[in-house]
Amino acid sequence: MSEKNISMAVIRRLPKYHAYLGELLKKDQRKISSRQLSEITGFTASQIRQDLNNFGGFGQQGYGYNIEMLYNEIGKILGIDKSHSAILIGAGNLGQAIFNYTGFNSAHFSIKGIFDVNKEIIGTKMKDVEVLDINTVDKFIKENNIEIAILCIPKNNAQQMVDVLVENKIKGIWNFSSTDLEVPESVIVENVNITESLLTLSYLIKEKQ
Amino acid sequence: MSEKNISMAVIRRLPKYHAYLGELLKKDQRKISSRQLSEITGFTASQIRQDLNNFGGFGQQGYGYNIEMLYNEIGKILGIDKSHSAILIGAGNLGQAIFNYTGFNSAHFSIKGIFDVNKEIIGTKMKDVEVLDINTVDKFIKENNIEIAILCIPKNNAQQMVDVLVENKIKGIWNFSSTDLEVPESVIVENVNITESLLTLSYLIKEKQ
Repeated sequence: MSEKNISMAVIRRLPKYHAYLGELLKKDQRKISSRQLSEITGFTASQIRQDLNNFGGFGQQGYGYNIEMLYNEIGKILGIDKSHSAILIGAGNLGQAIFNYTGFNSAHFSIKGIFDVNKEIIGTKMKDVEVLDINTVDKFIKENNIEIAILCIPKNNAQQMVDVLVENKIKGIWNFSSTDLEVPESVIVENVNITESLLTLSYLIKEKQ
Repeated sequence: MSEKNISMAVIRRLPKYHAYLGELLKKDQRKISSRQLSEITGFTASQIRQDLNNFGGFGQQGYGYNIEMLYNEIGKILGIDKSHSAILIGAGNLGQAIFNYTGFNSAHFSIKGIFDVNKEIIGTKMKDVEVLDINTVDKFIKENNIEIAILCIPKNNAQQMVDVLVENKIKGIWNFSSTDLEVPESVIVENVNITESLLTLSYLIKEKQ
């Protein structure tokens, strides 16, 4: 694939472009120059042009970018031109917060099942989605073509759970368990490690003083 | 300060070293070589030595690192040798998840107040901490020497809230509001943008196929 060697720094800027373009679309703006996009995003115009050139450019000399076209193209690059099926593992506070997160009210991602060990909540529903016994997760992944597992369980149990997910051919793990996971190369792990984030904030505050 | 020019990549590895060393300490291990540390962390031994040399080294030729000493020194570098006072802004699901996050049961960070706009929960308590009216946040920050605000409110209201925080001399904002914030240079913002994280996962899954 032509996009294989794109750096992670570029990849992590794409969702930002996508979000800003989405905001502009809502305001019915039609086109934008890389200089205007620079003012909004804080990235330099040349950085923006360089980033987008990785995927074919999309701009027109003297016109700039067609916002709707660019928004849709970046959406395709990000793989959200189709819907992804996910499961939530762990229905505690964090799991509930992620479940209620507005991103899942979109067409791009949907949580098909919620899994927990707590017998008191198994069988209850969050919105329309049932909380199921964690011991049935293997069967559920296969039968429902689940691509993504959202891991919101304590770190002590995380790797054991991940081994089950990997065995059942999960494609990606969105990891909120504040621990590093071992997976084969075929499985993507995206970590949201809030401990690391908080300690980074602490460091930067200290350095500023 | 001698640490001013450390790259963000190094800074973001420090919490990882700190976490791994903490685990080793719990197992009563006393010392470790950079090679062993490499096996645990997945970073190369030379990367680890180089990272730690930014702050003075801490290793001894032929001995390796004293784990407790290195753990404490990295803690100091991260600014957690003293306690930080924080407030939580937004007591919805995400705010509750962050509040219950184990990192705040430590000696390093404590949430002194919780703020919300919802009159039905103002006056209630989460554990021992009262939920207060958001309109009193300015006074509270000053009277309680609050350093960190944890922002768990919808993005539409985020910047307006941040302007109030900045005016009241907050030092750092831990931003869960999925939007970029404008602050003066004196204020640190650490973003936890889960939308960007989810879209990155989506991209990487697509690329793998």
